[in-house]
Amino acid sequence: MSKGMQTRDTALREALAQSSHVGLKGITIGTLADSLSMSKSGLFAHFRSKEQLQVDVLDYAAELFTMCVVQPALKEPRGLERLRTLVELWLGWDGYADYAMPGGCVFISAAMEYDDEPDGPVRDRLVAQQEQWFDSMERVIRGAVREGQLREDLDVLQFAHELNGLMLGHHFAARLLRDPAARDRAYAALDRLIADAAPGPTAG
Amino acid sequence: MSKGMQTRDTALREALAQSSHVGLKGITIGTLADSLSMSKSGLFAHFRSKEQLQVDVLDYAAELFTMCVVQPALKEPRGLERLRTLVELWLGWDGYADYAMPGGCVFISAAMEYDDEPDGPVRDRLVAQQEQWFDSMERVIRGAVREGQLREDLDVLQFAHELNGLMLGHHFAARLLRDPAARDRAYAALDRLIADAAPGPTAG
Repeated sequence: MSKGMQTRDTALREALAQSSHVGLKGITIGTLADSLSMSKSGLFAHFRSKEQLQVDVLDYAAELFTMCVVQPALKEPRGLERLRTLVELWLGWDGYADYAMPGGCVFISAAMEYDDEPDGPVRDRLVAQQEQWFDSMERVIRGAVREGQLREDLDVLQFAHELNGLMLGHHFAARLLRDPAARDRAYAALDRLIADAAPGPTAG
Repeated sequence: MSKGMQTRDTALREALAQSSHVGLKGITIGTLADSLSMSKSGLFAHFRSKEQLQVDVLDYAAELFTMCVVQPALKEPRGLERLRTLVELWLGWDGYADYAMPGGCVFISAAMEYDDEPDGPVRDRLVAQQEQWFDSMERVIRGAVREGQLREDLDVLQFAHELNGLMLGHHFAARLLRDPAARDRAYAALDRLIADAAPGPTAG
C-alpha cells in the first residue's frame, strides 16, 4: 500500500468510527483532520468534499460488510446452510464490527438520516448499496429454492424484505431495549420464515 | 388553555417538527427560541434544560401516538379486528403525523440516536415509552387469544417483537427505498404472522 493509500485508509477508518457516533452527516473534514493530527488541506486532497468523504465512508463500510458477512457465507454450501450463516453473520455484524463502528451499524443510522432527504450523491449511494444487498439476499434465498429446500413459487423478494425487518427488529431489541432474548427472538422469527417457505404437500 | 400552557404547546409542536429533521439531539432551546421569535430565557422558564425539553418532546409525541394510533384501535371490537386496525394505524402513523413530524417518526430516529448511549433521562424515557407500547401491543394480541382467534399457547411477546420488526422493515422500504410495494409487503408479513398464530388442529 502506498503512503497516500495508507493515509486514505487511516482517514476512512477514523471517519467510519466517528460517523458511527455522530452520524454520517455529523462528520466533517475539519474534525477528522484534528483527530488524525493532519492538515485540513491534506485531507481535502484525498476527499475533495464532505459529500465525497461520506460516499467513501459508505463504500469503506460496504467493503467491510462484504468481508465480514457476505464472503464467509458464500463459503457455506448453497441452500439453507448458506442462508442461515448469512443471517447469523448479519445479526453479529454490529458487534463483529465493533472495533470499526463502536457507535453501531452505520447503514442503519445512515438509513434514518437520509430516508427523508431528496436525491443526492450520499443518499443515492446508500440506496444503491441496499439494493445490491437485497440482490445478494435474493441470490442466497434462490439457492435454497434450487436445492429444493424452499418452495418453487416462493416470493423471494418478500422473503428478503421480511429478513430485513427481522434484522431491524433485532437491532432495536438488542441495542435500545437491551433485551437479552433479542437474538433468540430473531432466530425464532427466522425459523418461522423458513418453515412457511418450506416445500409442502400443499405447495405447487 | 392558559397563556403559559399555550406557549408551551406551541413550543413543543415546533420542537417536535424540528427534531423530526435534525434529531432529538439536534434541537436546542436557542434555535427553538429563534424560530418561535421568543426569548431564550422565556423558553428556559418552560423547559429548564435541553434534556427536559427532549423528554417533553418525547411525551408530546407519545400523546399524539396514543391519540392517532392506540385510542382509535381500542374502539374496534376486541380481537383480530382491533389488532389489524392497530397495525394499520401504526403503519400510517408516519404519514398520518406528517404535519407534526415532516422529517419522519421521531421514535425511530430517537431509537437510533440513543440506542448506544449510556442511561440518562432521555434514553430512559424513550425505553419506558417503548416498553409501554409493547405492553399495549401485547394486550391487543392477548385479546385475540381470548376471542379464540389466536392460539392459547402463543408467545405474545415474540408476536409483538415480530410486529415491531415488520413495522421497521416497512419504514425502511417505504422511506429509504421508496418501494411502492412496501405497504403490501407489510400486510403480507402480518397475514403470515396471524396465520401462524391461528388455533389449528395441531395446537394445544
